[in-house]
Parts: sequence; structure tokens; C-alpha cells
Amino acid sequence: MEKIKPRTLSGFMELLPAEQQKMERIMETLRRTYSLYGFTPLDTPLIESAEVLLAKGGGETEKQIYRFTKGDSDLALRFDLTVPLAKYVALNYSRLAFPFRRYQIGKVYRGERAQRGRFREFYQADIDIIGDGRLDIINEAEIPSIIYRTFTSLGLTRFKIRVNNRKILSGFYDILGLAERSGDIMRTVDKLDKIGPEKVRALLMDEEIGVTAEQAEEILRFIAIKGTNAEVLDALGAYTGRSELFDTGLAELGAVTRYLDAFGVPEQNFAIDLSIARGLDYYTGTVYETVMTDYPEVGSVCSGGRYDNLAEYYTDRPLPGVGISIGLTRLFYVLNEQKMLSDDIITAPADALVIPMTENTAFAVSACTVLRDAGIRTALYTEDKKFKAKMSYADRLGYPFVVLIGEDEAAQGLVSCKNMQTGRQEMLSADAAAELIAAELKRRGEAAIIKEK
Amino acid sequence: MEKIKPRTLSGFMELLPAEQQKMERIMETLRRTYSLYGFTPLDTPLIESAEVLLAKGGGETEKQIYRFTKGDSDLALRFDLTVPLAKYVALNYSRLAFPFRRYQIGKVYRGERAQRGRFREFYQADIDIIGDGRLDIINEAEIPSIIYRTFTSLGLTRFKIRVNNRKILSGFYDILGLAERSGDIMRTVDKLDKIGPEKVRALLMDEEIGVTAEQAEEILRFIAIKGTNAEVLDALGAYTGRSELFDTGLAELGAVTRYLDAFGVPEQNFAIDLSIARGLDYYTGTVYETVMTDYPEVGSVCSGGRYDNLAEYYTDRPLPGVGISIGLTRLFYVLNEQKMLSDDIITAPADALVIPMTENTAFAVSACTVLRDAGIRTALYTEDKKFKAKMSYADRLGYPFVVLIGEDEAAQGLVSCKNMQTGRQEMLSADAAAELIAAELKRRGEAAIIKEK
Repeated sequence: MEKIKPRTLSGFMELLPAEQQKMERIMETLRRTYSLYGFTPLDTPLIESAEVLLAKGGGETEKQIYRFTKGDSDLALRFDLTVPLAKYVALNYSRLAFPFRRYQIGKVYRGERAQRGRFREFYQADIDIIGDGRLDIINEAEIPSIIYRTFTSLGLTRFKIRVNNRKILSGFYDILGLAERSGDIMRTVDKLDKIGPEKVRALLMDEEIGVTAEQAEEILRFIAIKGTNAEVLDALGAYTGRSELFDTGLAELGAVTRYLDAFGVPEQNFAIDLSIARGLDYYTGTVYETVMTDYPEVGSVCSGGRYDNLAEYYTDRPLPGVGISIGLTRLFYVLNEQKMLSDDIITAPADALVIPMTENTAFAVSACTVLRDAGIRTALYTEDKKFKAKMSYADRLGYPFVVLIGEDEAAQGLVSCKNMQTGRQEMLSADAAAELIAAELKRRGEAAIIKEK
Repeated sequence: MEKIKPRTLSGFMELLPAEQQKMERIMETLRRTYSLYGFTPLDTPLIESAEVLLAKGGGETEKQIYRFTKGDSDLALRFDLTVPLAKYVALNYSRLAFPFRRYQIGKVYRGERAQRGRFREFYQADIDIIGDGRLDIINEAEIPSIIYRTFTSLGLTRFKIRVNNRKILSGFYDILGLAERSGDIMRTVDKLDKIGPEKVRALLMDEEIGVTAEQAEEILRFIAIKGTNAEVLDALGAYTGRSELFDTGLAELGAVTRYLDAFGVPEQNFAIDLSIARGLDYYTGTVYETVMTDYPEVGSVCSGGRYDNLAEYYTDRPLPGVGISIGLTRLFYVLNEQKMLSDDIITAPADALVIPMTENTAFAVSACTVLRDAGIRTALYTEDKKFKAKMSYADRLGYPFVVLIGEDEAAQGLVSCKNMQTGRQEMLSADAAAELIAAELKRRGEAAIIKEK
């Protein structure tokens, strides 16, 4: 038979088993953390009607989209989880209770140019809180605590949540008389980290935006305001009374900062940063970015913000919200590249491998059943191989425990349980082995998946 | 702005939050059960090269497939999880240890004619054990125990795992001199449940298959062999010594049945059934079906079998295996329709809703942090509404506990914790509330997701 060469498409991440176990561990941690904050899981189709998905239309996204027809239907693969959420909320409005808090961890598709570390199929892990008509500022204040708990639960401590408020920025440009150009200005200022202040100044003053040298100076001085949260808030106080929008924004930023302590976020993981605007046009209040302290070049690993109209393309109803998104596949890729994924977690398919050493395997099978009934994840080695081959299989897959059953064991109704980490082996009943394994796994505890150097 | 009518494509399941929580519960149970048997999780792309995915080619499947181009690439959405597994194993052969046991729960796509209860996007939950060159019969014996534990963990007890062996069938047709027509015959016999013995007889004797009346009689008598497992094995014993294939199959079926007890499968949930062949051509040994005793019309909810060449389209290497698949979306749909999904499980977004009753919310926020640190899934009610509206929100979402924080509570540094099931309310510290909630949730225990009537 002629063979087809097996291959996986470029830009599509497909992990080996041990790596996949680490990815699963991260997803499990995210699910648990999001649940801890009262977000309900949601699962929407990968495919939507193109008309619905592209309601907003235009832009970079439309070029990257996977769009195709099936029968008479014009279809597309989702390119983010926000548009499907907007559709879902508009469609099910009367059946949901607001504020509606949902998380979704799912794959999205963008046909970007393939390059190392860029993915065409990738997981996003999103949370959003949607209000009906209004949504209290306290929701914006809660987001940093969710980001904080998410990353610390994964084992990362060296990160900073950077926060700003779009109303402060827009208000500031109002004060300068640059309100109409504020969108362009913010997109330029957003590049500060990448291109530095002098190039930002040049871009601001070039024809397209055309601010004066004085205005550019004011802008650069403004976004350069640095210090502790209290110092930054203090410095911003100097601008109050000149723009209502600015004053509202400053009050919101103050509230977000004030709640940090009650939400359990240490100041060292949080910084007001006036240079952050987030490129997307629909953010209207607090905006968030999260950077790994030792890897600033990676950029933000968790971003989002407050918006006023989630579903404006589907409904007249104002549905304000706040949300953040983690680009999970890229984060996993980066952590893997930086060797920051811990080798201390169990990546074996199970906790114990039961190895029968005689042809009579019935007793070994019963031992498996005892272990499983006790909640021990147990694999049975089934093939007729030499002892060395069996042990090398256990080694290769990294089983923490091997349970050996030879003639002696079967005759006495016992098993030999070997701790593969310590090498210690003891003969005992299957029940006792289950207890021993459970106790040892508990003692080792759950290693964090991310290991900082 | 002109609005686009929000809609979800027909044939695509999209659940409301409470239903989704039930689906998540099922998926979590499957993940846990499969892990208990040492299957490692895998996640392969939704999109594959059409050439790779359709290596086998032809048939009903190809018509249903979602196939499209992006740039120069001819792509397709996976229509099952077996073909991607075959590709994965062929591609990563040298990096895997065999037997390779993997589970995968993922969405697959088939553009079937839309009708009630039929889905174009649906979850499959698959496990497979792949051997390198050979795979011991004990793996086939282990499968019923996995099916048994999976369904009982979900709360279903009234089901039967029906098992047969293709070698017995093929061997029997050898004996009748009908080996060359055995494929057609088995596909016909497979319809027995649906159309009854007389129509099967007629089909067998019509031109296309053309067996004699005598042969048809023999076939019907054979597949009508019924009784306890011991009785059926005994009746089959009468045919031995006339076909090597038959004898091997009978030995295998005997082994599978003999191990049941050691694997902890009660005889009442297991039956040898000679009428089962499974339509698919690639099964070569044990085949499985699982039917819900009270809903035979639903058909098999978990099927599979033993095959000899998982990846023959990609590699010359013989990779035998055994696997089963649950059509999860359809199963969920059926259980939901039959009102068999328990209302006793918590479908609220969290265990507790903290409701601040004064404007000073900082203490309520701290209480949330205490509860979350103790592992209690906690949502904060954030909006400025009347007390009644806040409680009705808690009711509507089904929170098991509400934690009220008014002036008295804040002044004393306490919270009022209300058990929404009993109505009992008590004022205590946030730490004590966390303990009370944890203890009560533990006391209630985890309700099974499936409730039999």
C-alpha cells in the first residue's frame, strides 16, 4: 500500500505526552482559579456563521480568518473568544443573570504567517464579567487579584500587573486639545517599550498625527510619570479639575489601587503605568497588562480591560464588561523554551505501574483493581517481555511507583511496591500499597508547574 | 448601527451555564476515570492536511467532511479522533513507549443532515491502547472494566456491556464456506436489533449476498445463542476444531470473560452477544457495545474494539490496538432529554456568593479573599441593588451559600453565612464561615451526575 507521510501542519502545536501533561496541569490550574472567583465555564462552537463572526468587519483579523463554505453556508472559525461571547450573551440575554461571569478556555484560529513561536491554532483562556446596563468599578478592581492568584498558583512570582485607565488618557488629551487625535496618539504611545521615547516623539510630530513639539513634550512627560502607586496618583492629581473624563478616570484608578490590599495583591506585583493604552479601540476604562519580570521581551502574557459595549453589533442593549485573556499556547511555548516548566511534576500516565512477572496475571489484575478503587492512578503492564524491558518502560515513562507481582507475591497474596525515586521496595498487601503510595504522593505535594530560576 | 441577528449554527450544541456545568462534570469524571487506568491525555489539532486526514479515502465520511483551502493548503477538520491518533503515533513512533495508552476528549466535525439530536460538531471521548507489533489479549479484557467504571462513576448502573469477537464470526463463516461474503453478512447481521430476524434472513438470501436457506438458518441459529456467559461459551465449544480462526477467537473471548471478576466487573453488566459485529471493517478481535438497559432505542453509547493496523496508511509498522469511544455530545443530549441529569449537583458559578449590604465594600472583599484562600469558590456581588434583587440573583444562580455583610457584621469583623438549602443563618468569622461551608459541602458529598429513575 502506498503510504502518506504523516505530518502535523506548521503553526499547530502538538505535544508529546509528558509535555501535554504539563499543559493539562496549567489548564487545570486555570480552571480551578477561575472557579475560585465565581466564573462559570462556557463552551461555544469553533465554527460560526461568517456573518455573525465578522459583524464588526474589516481590519487585520479578516485577512487571517479561516473562512469557507459548506453547502450554502458561509462559515468561519472563531479567531477569539470575545466575539462568540458577545453573540452568546446577546442570544441568551433573557436566560442569563447579570453580572454574568464566565470563563472559557478554547482554541482559536488565525492564519498568520508561520514563524517560530507563532501559532495558527492556539488556546486562549478568557474571563469576562458582563453587566446589564452598568457594571460597578469593583469588578475592575477584582481583576488584578485574579491575575495575581492565577500566576502565583502556577508558581510564577516574578511578574508585574501594569494598570492604566483609558479615561485618564482620553481626559489628558482633552486637556491638551488633542481629543480627536487621541486614538492615533495612544497607539503610538503604546509602542514606547518597543521603540523608545525619541522615536515616539518623532512619530507624534510627523504629518500623520502632527502634534506640536510642546504637546509632544507634555505627552512624554505625562507618560513618564513613575513611582509608587501613591506617587503616581499624587502626580496625576495635578491635572484634576480640567476634564471631567480625566477626573472620573483618576477616581477609578484610585479605587482599583485602594482595593488591592483587601483583594490580597502585594504592591510589588502591581504598578500603575501610564504608557499602557492597549491597541484595541473598544477599551474604555481600566486596562491591564502582565509582564514577566525576567522576560520583558515576551511582552504581556495576560491583558485586557474594561469595555462599554460587548455586543453592540448584535443588540442595542448596553452590555458593559471587563475581561482579560491569556494566550495560553504562546505562554506554554515561552515557558518551555525558557526551561521554566518544572520537571518535578508527575508526567507519567499514572502514579503506579503494576508489573506481573509470571504468566498468571489474574492476581496482578486484582491488585490493579484494589489500587484504582483506592483512587491510585494505575496502569497494568500487559506485554510478555523480559524484566529489564518492563522496568525500562517504567523508567522511560517516569512512573513514581512500580508494583511487582512475582510467584512469591502471588503465593502470599502480597505485592512488592517500589518507590522509583528512593529505590526502596517493600512487600505488603495491595491495600497497604495503596495507602503507602497515597501518603507518599501527598507528602511530596503538588509541585508548582512553573519553576523560576 | 445596523444589527446582525445573533445565532448559533444548527447542529452545534451550545449550552446554558447550568447545563454546561453538568457537561463539565461529565468530562471531569471521564478524565479522572481514564487517568485511573493509566491513559495519558492527548490534544491534537482540529485541522489537518486533507491528504493526511483522508489517507484512507472514500466512503460516507468524505462526503460529510469539512474541507477547505487556506492559501495553498488543502485542509480538513477532523471527523474522528482515531485518524489523528494514527498520524500522531506514526509521526512520533520513536519518541513513544509502547504499549501507548492515551485518552482524548475533543470535538470532531461531520456535516450530516441537520436533525434533532444529530450534531455536526460533537465531542468524542476516546481511549486507545497501541502496541508495537503485538498487544496482549489482557488489554482487550481490561476494556470492559474501564467502561464499567466510567458509567458507574457517572451514576449509571443499568447498562450492559455487550461483547463479541470478530475472529469467532469470521471463523464461523469459514466453517460455512462463506468466508468471502463474511463482510456483507456481518453488516447484515449487525442490523438484527433494528429489523428483526426475518428481515435479516431475507437480506441474507437476496441476490446480493445469496446464502442458501440452510446457511441462513445456521447463521440465525448461531447468532441466537443466548444465556449466561458460561452457557454461551459452552454452546460455542460445539463449533471448535473446524477453523483455527474460530478457535483463537473463542480462546480470546474466554480470556476476556475470565478476567471480568479480577477487573471488578459484575456479570450483570456484561454479556457475550454474538449478534454484534460493529460495521467498521478494521476491527479484528474483541468488539464492544454498551447499551442503557432502559433506553435500548438510543443504541450503543460506548463502542469499539480490537484492530490490527492503526496506522497502515502512514507506516509499514504493524501497530495493533484496542479502543473505545463515547459520543459525548449525543450522550449528553439523550440524558438531558430523558431528564436523567441530576439537579442535585451544584451548577452555580461558585459555592458562595458574598453580598455587601453597605457602601463600604472593603471588608466584604477581604472576606472573599479569606474564603478563596481556604479553597471556597466565591463570587462577590458587586452591583448597587436592593437587597431583594441581590438575593434573587443568588437564588436564580443556585448558590448553596450566601455570605451577607452589613453594618453590624463589618463593625464586628464578622460575616453572616446563610445555608440556602436549610435557610439557617449564623454570624461568625470569615475563617469559620469557610470551615462551615467546606464541612457542609463535604457532608453533602458529590452527587452523581446521572440519576436513574
